[in-house]
Amino acid sequence: MRGRAVLQEEIVPEVSRRPPAPVVPSTGVLTPLGVDAVSLSGGFWGSRQDLNASATLPHCTDWVYRSGAVDNFRDLPGRGREFADSDVYKLLEALSWESGRRHGDPVLDTKIDELAAVLAKAQSGDGYLNTRYGSARYSDLEWGHELYCYGHLIQAGVARLRCHGEDLLVEVARRAADHVCAEFGPDGRDDICGHPEIETALVELYRATGERRYLDQAKLFVERRGHGRLADIEFGRAYYQDDLPVRDRPVFSGHAVREFYFACGAVDVAVETGDEELLGAIVRQWERTVAARTYVTGATGSRHAGESFGVDFELPPDRAYGETCAAIGSVMLSWRLLLATGEARFADLIERTLFNAVAVSPSLDGRSFFYSNPLQVREPGERPDLDRPLPRSSAGLRASWFDVACCPPNLARLMASLGTYQATTETNGVQLHQLWPGSLSTTFGRIVIETGYPWSGQVTIRVESAVDAPWRLSIRVPEWAHGARLAGRPVEPGYTVVDRRWAPDDRLTLELPMAPRWIWADPRIDAVRGCVAVERGPLVYCAESTSFEVDPARPLEEIRLAGLGADVVGLGARGSGAALPAAMWPYRSERPAGTNTPADCVLIPYHLWGNRGPTGMRVFLPIDRDGHS
Amino acid sequence: MRGRAVLQEEIVPEVSRRPPAPVVPSTGVLTPLGVDAVSLSGGFWGSRQDLNASATLPHCTDWVYRSGAVDNFRDLPGRGREFADSDVYKLLEALSWESGRRHGDPVLDTKIDELAAVLAKAQSGDGYLNTRYGSARYSDLEWGHELYCYGHLIQAGVARLRCHGEDLLVEVARRAADHVCAEFGPDGRDDICGHPEIETALVELYRATGERRYLDQAKLFVERRGHGRLADIEFGRAYYQDDLPVRDRPVFSGHAVREFYFACGAVDVAVETGDEELLGAIVRQWERTVAARTYVTGATGSRHAGESFGVDFELPPDRAYGETCAAIGSVMLSWRLLLATGEARFADLIERTLFNAVAVSPSLDGRSFFYSNPLQVREPGERPDLDRPLPRSSAGLRASWFDVACCPPNLARLMASLGTYQATTETNGVQLHQLWPGSLSTTFGRIVIETGYPWSGQVTIRVESAVDAPWRLSIRVPEWAHGARLAGRPVEPGYTVVDRRWAPDDRLTLELPMAPRWIWADPRIDAVRGCVAVERGPLVYCAESTSFEVDPARPLEEIRLAGLGADVVGLGARGSGAALPAAMWPYRSERPAGTNTPADCVLIPYHLWGNRGPTGMRVFLPIDRDGHS
Repeated sequence: MRGRAVLQEEIVPEVSRRPPAPVVPSTGVLTPLGVDAVSLSGGFWGSRQDLNASATLPHCTDWVYRSGAVDNFRDLPGRGREFADSDVYKLLEALSWESGRRHGDPVLDTKIDELAAVLAKAQSGDGYLNTRYGSARYSDLEWGHELYCYGHLIQAGVARLRCHGEDLLVEVARRAADHVCAEFGPDGRDDICGHPEIETALVELYRATGERRYLDQAKLFVERRGHGRLADIEFGRAYYQDDLPVRDRPVFSGHAVREFYFACGAVDVAVETGDEELLGAIVRQWERTVAARTYVTGATGSRHAGESFGVDFELPPDRAYGETCAAIGSVMLSWRLLLATGEARFADLIERTLFNAVAVSPSLDGRSFFYSNPLQVREPGERPDLDRPLPRSSAGLRASWFDVACCPPNLARLMASLGTYQATTETNGVQLHQLWPGSLSTTFGRIVIETGYPWSGQVTIRVESAVDAPWRLSIRVPEWAHGARLAGRPVEPGYTVVDRRWAPDDRLTLELPMAPRWIWADPRIDAVRGCVAVERGPLVYCAESTSFEVDPARPLEEIRLAGLGADVVGLGARGSGAALPAAMWPYRSERPAGTNTPADCVLIPYHLWGNRGPTGMRVFLPIDRDGHS
Repeated sequence: MRGRAVLQEEIVPEVSRRPPAPVVPSTGVLTPLGVDAVSLSGGFWGSRQDLNASATLPHCTDWVYRSGAVDNFRDLPGRGREFADSDVYKLLEALSWESGRRHGDPVLDTKIDELAAVLAKAQSGDGYLNTRYGSARYSDLEWGHELYCYGHLIQAGVARLRCHGEDLLVEVARRAADHVCAEFGPDGRDDICGHPEIETALVELYRATGERRYLDQAKLFVERRGHGRLADIEFGRAYYQDDLPVRDRPVFSGHAVREFYFACGAVDVAVETGDEELLGAIVRQWERTVAARTYVTGATGSRHAGESFGVDFELPPDRAYGETCAAIGSVMLSWRLLLATGEARFADLIERTLFNAVAVSPSLDGRSFFYSNPLQVREPGERPDLDRPLPRSSAGLRASWFDVACCPPNLARLMASLGTYQATTETNGVQLHQLWPGSLSTTFGRIVIETGYPWSGQVTIRVESAVDAPWRLSIRVPEWAHGARLAGRPVEPGYTVVDRRWAPDDRLTLELPMAPRWIWADPRIDAVRGCVAVERGPLVYCAESTSFEVDPARPLEEIRLAGLGADVVGLGARGSGAALPAAMWPYRSERPAGTNTPADCVLIPYHLWGNRGPTGMRVFLPIDRDGHS
C-alpha cells in the first residue's frame, strides 16, 4: 500500500476537475475551456463546425472504411501505408470531441464503440498495436510510424476520457501507452520515432490520468531526439529533427508537421516539469520561424521535397507546400504557448492561420480538401476524380481523399474541438482570444459574442450572467487592428482589459477597422519582390486571374461576389492586364516594355479560392511595371 | 544465303566511314567530326578536357570501385542502387572517348579491358546483365533501371567500337542489345523502362553496326511510351513521360533527365526513319521549353520534387534543381537537333548551357561536383566531407561523389568527347559552331582557331591546309553578339558564311562585342521580378555576396579576380548594401523603406562560384529599391 500512497502524492494534475479540451496544462498562465463550455453559433467558424459534423465526419468515416484503414485492423498484417492506422485514430478523436461538445451523442458514441472494438481485437497482449509490422516490430523506426500512430491513438483516448469517461477506446489507448513506457522506458530501447507525436500525446495522457510515467516517458523522447539516433537519410537528420538537441535548435526546420508536433511535445514537457529553459528554446524557435519562415497566410513548409521548412526568407508562393497538417500543427503549438504565457502574439498567429491556411483546405461542401496550400497556382488544375484518393502534393483542386490521408481527419478533429481555442480563464477573469460569435460558460459567468466578424468589424460582447464579484474581461484586439475602439474609446492591438463587477446584460462593443490593406513583404522574401498582397481584417485575399498588375496607390473597394456565400466581402483592385508577347528566349538585354491596358481585378478571400471550378490563383500581385525599373 | 543478302540491303548506314563521335546520323543536314579530328588546345574547354583526363577520370575510376559499383558485378546480386551499374558504363564510355581522342592509349585501353572482363563474367548466357535483380528480372520496370543501364552500356560499346573496333566491351554491349530486342521486341514484353535511355543508345548501335533491329526496337520503345504502361505513381506518369504519346506532348515535362534522354531517342528515330512529324514534335517541345522552362544559365528542371520541369515560367532561382545531368541531356538533345536542321539556335543553347550550367558542376581541381545547380544560395553551405558520397540535392559546395552518382561520370563522358561538338561538315563545306581554340581536321582542310574566348572577343580562324577547290566556311556568330564584325565587316548573329577557294594560311578574324550586359527576365518569371542578371559574352555572372542591390542605370566595369585563374574577367557593379532591420513579422501594410548605403559588388562568372570556400550566391540581383514602389 505504501507504493500506492507514493504514487498518489506524485499525481500533480487534479484530474477530476479538468475540462474536456485537447490541451489541459497543470500549470501555465491560462486555463482552457472545455468543448462543452463553448458554443459557436453560426458565423464563420460555427457554420464550418456544423459542416464538419454533418459532412466531413461522415465523409472521413466513409473513407477510412473505403481506403482499407479499418480492414487493416481486422486482417493482420494490414496492407495500408505505414501510418494508415492514424487515419482511424484521428477520426476517433474527432468523433470523441464532436460527441463531447454535444454533451454526448448516441450515434457518434456507437460508432466510437464499434471502432474501439475493432482496435481492441487487433491489439497484442502486451499492448502493441500496429497493422503493418506484426513480428517485425520497431524494425524501421525512421519510417515505421508505430509510435506516431500510438500518439494519435492516445490523443483519441484522452478526448474520449475527458468527454465521456473510461471505456474500451480509453483502455486500448492506455494499454498502448503502457506498452510504450515498458518498451522505450529508461531500461528499454534507447530509441525514438521518425515522426514525433507520441511526446505530446503522452503528456496529455499524464494530464488526463495523473500517471507520472507518461510524462517521464515523453520527457525521455524529447531529450533523446537530436543526437543522431535515427539514420542519416537523403533529406538529412533535420528531416525528423534528429540533427540537433531541442534546446540547441535555432529555428524550426525539417519536415514541418514533424517539427510542430515535436515542439508541442517539448512545450508540454516544459510546462509540466517547470523547465523554463526548454520553453524559452521553443519560443525562440517560434519567433524566428514567424519572422522568416512563415507565409502571409500563416502557412509554413516552403518545400515539397521533404515537406520541409526552407531556409530563412525562402518563401516561394507557387511552390509553397504549406501542408494543411502543418497549419494545424502551428495552431496546436501556438495554443500551447498562449496557455503557457498569455501573450497575444500567439493568439494573433492562431487567428491568421485558422482564417487562411486552415480554412482554405476544405471545400464549401466539407467533402474535399487541399493538402498543399500554395499562394500561387499558375495553371488551372484538372477537376479531380472525387471517387479516388489523389497524390498529396497536387493543389489544382480539392480532392476527396489522399494516398497519404493525414489532412482530412486532422481537420475534422480540429474543427470538432475548435471552441476550446476561443477563450480561457485565469484566476482573475476571462480572456477572449478569438472574436467568434457564440457563447462561453465560465466560472465567472456566461458570455455571449455577437458579430458578423470577419466580414464585419463590429463585435458585441454581452455578459449574460456573472458571479457576484468583480472580475477582469480581457479582449484581444488583433495585431492588424490599428484604430480599433472599445466602447467608443481607442484601444491598441493586444489584450485590452475591462475590470468590473459585471451585471447581466452588460455589453461592450468592439469596433475594428475593416478597410482593406495593401501588404508589402520583407525585401528578403525574394520570390514576391515587386508584388503586393491584400488583407481585410484577418483575411488574406487573392485573385483567381493571374495576368494582372495592380497599382497600390489606388484604393481597393468592396464588391459583392457570386457563388461563395452571402456574407462574403469581395474586393476590386484597379491596375492593368498584362498582355505579354511570346518570346523565343525569356531573358533580354532590355528592360521589358509595359504593354498593359487598364483593367479591373476581382479579389476574393484566399480561403475560398478554387471553389467555383478550376482556376489559377495568386496572393501576391505584381505591381504595375510602369512604376518599375 | 538469300536472307543474308536481304539483310545486307537493309543496312543503311555506311558503317565503315563513320567518324568516332557519339552521334553519327545516317541523314540530316550536318555531319559531325570524330573525337580524333578535333584538338582543343588549351583555353576554356581544352584545359577542362585535359583536367578531365588527368583528374576527373582517375577520380571517377577510383569511386566506382570505392562505391562498390564494380564489386556489384563480381558478387551477384549487388548491393548498390538500382542504377549503380550505369556509373561503370558511363565511365567506360568516357575512357573510350578519351582513348579515342588520343588515337589509342595503352593505359586507358587496359582499364577498359579489365572492366569489360568483369562485365562479361557477370552477363547471363542470354545477354541479361544487371547486378541488382537476378531472378526478379524486369519485376519493377518503373524503378528498376535495367533498360536504362543497358543504354549506357550500349553507348559505351558504341564509343569503343568507333574509337577502337570490336572487343570484349563491344561484345558485351551487343549481347545486351540483342537480349533487349529478343525480350522486348514485337513478340516479347510490351513494356518500357521507367528511365528512358535505351532508345537513343539502340539507334546509335544501329548506326554503328548497321543492324536494323536495333533501330526497330528503339522506335518501338519511343512509340510505346506515353500510353500509361507504367504505374501511376505519386509524381504522376508525367514523371517518366508516360502520360502522353511523344507526338502529342506540348512541352518537356516530368523528370528532366528522363525527358532529355527520351527526346534524344525520339530525334534519333525520327532522323533514321525520315519521320518529319516526330522531329517536328520534338522541335516544338524544345521551343516552348526554351521560351518558358529554361534558366538563364541554360539549366532546366525547376523542381527538387521529382527532379522535374515546372510549369511555364516557374523558374525559382533558389530552388532551381538544375541537375548537371539535365544540362548534359539538354546539350545532347540540342546537338541532335543541330545536326538534323543546321539551325543556329540549337548551337546557341549548347554554348550557353556548356559555359554555364555544365561548367559550373566540376570544381577547379576536377575532383568535386555540383549535382544541383541553383541560381541563388541563401546561406553558405558547410564544407562537405570529400571522403564520402553526399545526398544529391545539397548544393552548398561541390561533393566528391553522390549516393546517386550519375553526374560525375556523365560529365566525364561529355568532356572526353567534347571536341565533336565544335564543328561539322556538309557537302559544301565546314561549319564552326563553337569558338574554341584548337584545330579541326576535315575533308575540306585543316582549320586552326586561335582565341582567348570567352574572356576575349577576338577569334582568329586560320586555314592551315585546304583542298584545291572552293568550299564554304560557316561561322556561328552567337545570339547575344549584336555588333560583331568578321574581317572588319558587320555580321549578324547566326551563321555567317565565307565561300572561297582557300589557300594555306588564309585568316579570318571575328570580333565579338564583350561589354557586359544587364539582363532582364520576362515578367512572367515571377521569382526574379525586380531583379537583373549580368552577362558578358556567353557567360552568366553572379555575386557571392547576397545582400546587395544594384542600379542597372550605372555601368558595369571589368576587374581582376583573385584565386580563380589568370584569364578570368570579373565585373564590378555599383549599388547599395541592403541593411535590413529584423522584424517580428515580415509582412507590413507600408512599403518597406530603403535603408541602403552605397556599396560596390563583385560579380564573378557563375560557373566559378563556390570554388573559394563556402559562400552564398545569386545570379539575379535585386534592383535598388529606391527605384521601386
